[in-house]
Amino acid sequence: MPQTLKGAGVSPGAGHGPAKRLVRDIPAPEPDAGRGGDAAAEAERAVGAMEETARDLTDRGQAAGGDAAEVLNAQALMARDPALADDVRKRVEEGASAARAVSEAMAVYRQMLAGAGEYLAARVADLDDVRDRIVARLMGAPVPGIPESDVPFVLVAEDLAPADTAALDPERVVAFVTREGGPTSHTAILARSLGLPAVVACPGAEEVAEETMVLVDGATGDVVLDPDPAAVEAATAASAARAAAAARSTGPGRTADGHEVPLLANIGGPKDLPAALENGAEGVGLYRTEFLFLDRADAPGHEEQVAAYRAVLEAFPGGRVVVRTLDAGADKPLEFLPAGEAEPNPALGERGLRMMRRLPRTLDAQLAALAEAERDTGAHLQVMAPMVTDTADAEWFAAAAAKAGIQHAGVMIEVPAAALRARHIARHADFFSIGTNDLTQYTCAADRETAGLGRFQDPWQPAVLDLVAASAASAADAGRSCGVCGEAAADPLLACVLAGLGATSLSMGASALPLVRAALARAELAQCRAAAEAARAAPGPEEARAAAAERLPGLAELGL
Amino acid sequence: MPQTLKGAGVSPGAGHGPAKRLVRDIPAPEPDAGRGGDAAAEAERAVGAMEETARDLTDRGQAAGGDAAEVLNAQALMARDPALADDVRKRVEEGASAARAVSEAMAVYRQMLAGAGEYLAARVADLDDVRDRIVARLMGAPVPGIPESDVPFVLVAEDLAPADTAALDPERVVAFVTREGGPTSHTAILARSLGLPAVVACPGAEEVAEETMVLVDGATGDVVLDPDPAAVEAATAASAARAAAAARSTGPGRTADGHEVPLLANIGGPKDLPAALENGAEGVGLYRTEFLFLDRADAPGHEEQVAAYRAVLEAFPGGRVVVRTLDAGADKPLEFLPAGEAEPNPALGERGLRMMRRLPRTLDAQLAALAEAERDTGAHLQVMAPMVTDTADAEWFAAAAAKAGIQHAGVMIEVPAAALRARHIARHADFFSIGTNDLTQYTCAADRETAGLGRFQDPWQPAVLDLVAASAASAADAGRSCGVCGEAAADPLLACVLAGLGATSLSMGASALPLVRAALARAELAQCRAAAEAARAAPGPEEARAAAAERLPGLAELGL
Repeated sequence: MPQTLKGAGVSPGAGHGPAKRLVRDIPAPEPDAGRGGDAAAEAERAVGAMEETARDLTDRGQAAGGDAAEVLNAQALMARDPALADDVRKRVEEGASAARAVSEAMAVYRQMLAGAGEYLAARVADLDDVRDRIVARLMGAPVPGIPESDVPFVLVAEDLAPADTAALDPERVVAFVTREGGPTSHTAILARSLGLPAVVACPGAEEVAEETMVLVDGATGDVVLDPDPAAVEAATAASAARAAAAARSTGPGRTADGHEVPLLANIGGPKDLPAALENGAEGVGLYRTEFLFLDRADAPGHEEQVAAYRAVLEAFPGGRVVVRTLDAGADKPLEFLPAGEAEPNPALGERGLRMMRRLPRTLDAQLAALAEAERDTGAHLQVMAPMVTDTADAEWFAAAAAKAGIQHAGVMIEVPAAALRARHIARHADFFSIGTNDLTQYTCAADRETAGLGRFQDPWQPAVLDLVAASAASAADAGRSCGVCGEAAADPLLACVLAGLGATSLSMGASALPLVRAALARAELAQCRAAAEAARAAPGPEEARAAAAERLPGLAELGL
Repeated sequence: MPQTLKGAGVSPGAGHGPAKRLVRDIPAPEPDAGRGGDAAAEAERAVGAMEETARDLTDRGQAAGGDAAEVLNAQALMARDPALADDVRKRVEEGASAARAVSEAMAVYRQMLAGAGEYLAARVADLDDVRDRIVARLMGAPVPGIPESDVPFVLVAEDLAPADTAALDPERVVAFVTREGGPTSHTAILARSLGLPAVVACPGAEEVAEETMVLVDGATGDVVLDPDPAAVEAATAASAARAAAAARSTGPGRTADGHEVPLLANIGGPKDLPAALENGAEGVGLYRTEFLFLDRADAPGHEEQVAAYRAVLEAFPGGRVVVRTLDAGADKPLEFLPAGEAEPNPALGERGLRMMRRLPRTLDAQLAALAEAERDTGAHLQVMAPMVTDTADAEWFAAAAAKAGIQHAGVMIEVPAAALRARHIARHADFFSIGTNDLTQYTCAADRETAGLGRFQDPWQPAVLDLVAASAASAADAGRSCGVCGEAAADPLLACVLAGLGATSLSMGASALPLVRAALARAELAQCRAAAEAARAAPGPEEARAAAAERLPGLAELGL
């Protein structure tokens, strides 16, 4: 009898395969674990495990390519460090077991790294991973990380962190299931960007036995253990039909009755342009500019900035490109600026526009580069500030943008106060763009990075929908546009609800565009509005989703 | 010509005196500072400074008494530690200067302390203070901390932290002025609890020269340097009149036209009862129960809890006592529970009810003790949960309270989502109590503990007033009461606005009760409502305050 677990579907599609668990922790070698027997043999066992781990990392690097290869090769060098091997041999000679010697020698290495400046300190996590791999090998424990497999499998985990997934082979994983997480968790974002079905916040996931056959429905949130072959076939067919529908969807975003909702791409730099164009983005709704500023010793120069902005503007002649000014802060420190005091809650700290108000020259330089980059590109440049909180913020940014010659200066709506006071803020903003990730985080006072708060990290929370509605209504009254550029826009059902709430454009990771376009094309504007109203009348996020789905029957053929 | 600085007035009253600055940093001894000359003399100079510092700390302890004496005597013991003196002597003999030797020897001591379990680790700050005092003495630098003075003075600082003010003599300080901070900062809370005038978020405060005569108006936020004698006289007279009016105010809280707004006290344990009763509290609006749970190795037993609750209930026969269940979390860890993972943003983490949902037995035990404590006291017990976020939270808490036999279970409204969805939450809550401190923090996404965000930590932010209004309206529609128990209620002008927004009771630190009572007695309900409406129509917090003041002319005679 198949058993069904219920979680939150955050990336639609059906996935079927044996469960494999992400192993994160390895048993720690006993503090006083001495070796018995032959010191020389034990030392060679230790160094052998180091070499095997290095080889394994290099192999994975070759298979992965790109940035991942660089990280994995650096890790292989750590495992192969001759000074480390000497230290391990010495510790074994002094009586430690192989696992204990590796663990202790690497702790010294680690301390050195942690104290050696910001860049090397950031490598500590990589070193810990190398240590865990060697120690696991020596103790005969499963190697931590993404499981290896020759057949496609369903990855089951407590939660996925960016580090867990760096070496993930998307060809081998057919779906994700996690016990923790919410729609804005790393798991969900990664799944959507890879187009993999995913269910998060799924109680019982921790008890799914290795190799159990699992059918994952990333739209409904159902995780069926040992499913009937018929169920697998039906789910797979629905998934194929959805993929086909998505592939057929082309042209500008619009509802079944022709209400236009331009579909734009979120990008992190010119490198993301090919995927955006390939998936039919009508422009860029969120151009994150941090890549130009982070991890470097000096601020980027004028010409470098102009080139980075112009590359994107030139890709969309006649289209719009919405650029977010630098969103740095305590959690994304700028190396070329003196570090501020550590903040107890960086997400509630001096980030985004708040930091720029203290560093007006950095902002002025960016705005000047943006104004110059727009010239003769034929694109429509819009520039917006992150973390605008009140009217005074909006007024200050509008003045700075005007001084730099920016024609269209707007604000991100991601702080609840800004949504609540959108009516006043609209007087000083040419447009709004709602960042649903942060807006959800603050409205529900639930950190996006904390596991166990998945229910509160869900943009289907009716309180968040209320704030979207309030922002869109204020924008409409003032004759302003109001887009949405958070993860919420990538959820096809929610995308229709957002249009019903009054969002005038939707921006998302490029891979989500085709399915959202297909969903919108199957809904009439009046249905979107009825779905929005029903969702807002619901007491909680699950009820909101169900109520909306009921009022958007056209999406059923997409299995949504 | 007198110069006027402008900040935010957060504790009304006039203070006049010479400025004295809080010294927090001392010059660090050069890393390679060797001594010249006579080693024995230098060593004795070092040990002499340690002994003088110890004596000074003991003297201060005697003068301060109470908890402060205990801390200061423990610090004196640190300064007098013979092992430390030996280590200092050895380092001087090896060539270090006295200051350097003390600094280095204490660093070793510090590391030991920091690694010796939670209780001792918490003493590290005390040790650092001792070190700074000795080193400052040896280097001829000003001793850090509250300046010493024989005459009353105005304390000027960047910001005040709890540690800065532990040894503060309220007889010697006539007012506070800080460059940073907001109405919920430690400076503001301390000033109100001591009844001292205070102005925070005051640019220019950092440049006020030592000993400049300063006149501080804690209602308007004006800080006048070198004021005219006439201005000082006028301010002092107004302050005296206000104090007299506050002293004359007695009886239950009500507006000039008789609309009742019960005035309650916020307490942190039975120790706060005398002040509450003395200031005429009609009950307790917020009984924080953390004192029973924090800093101890075991959870409190049933009898201990019953006694602590009953002591408060018995003090208010016929009155109400609103108890908040344990509000622990990552920033207030419970020693008798395994520590959770460190959270990147504890304020957005698993705190309050979120933690109790994982530890239902701790909550059930507290609820059972509360139910028993109420019996035969004649008081009206209300129990509320902190950090309620959505309808499911409220429903869960109501069920737990009902199971324990609690008659009146309510919720704190301090998460924006709860305020926005108050209509749904009211179905599962017997009453609301708005916590304006956290509500402001989340609505404006601005940490209460981060300096430099004062403008966003202000409950006069119209977005916060909007959420108070929404909560009170939902409560009224459902026939529920809706009190306010944050710092906002202690601001006499804002207290009237809160009543106008629909707050049905106001709870505050006991010392604020008389002036709030006097203010309410000078305002008609219709004026309060007009003031509330005007404040909500304002674009920012300053305009909101000014608009409200204009509509509450009766408060002018209190100088508000």
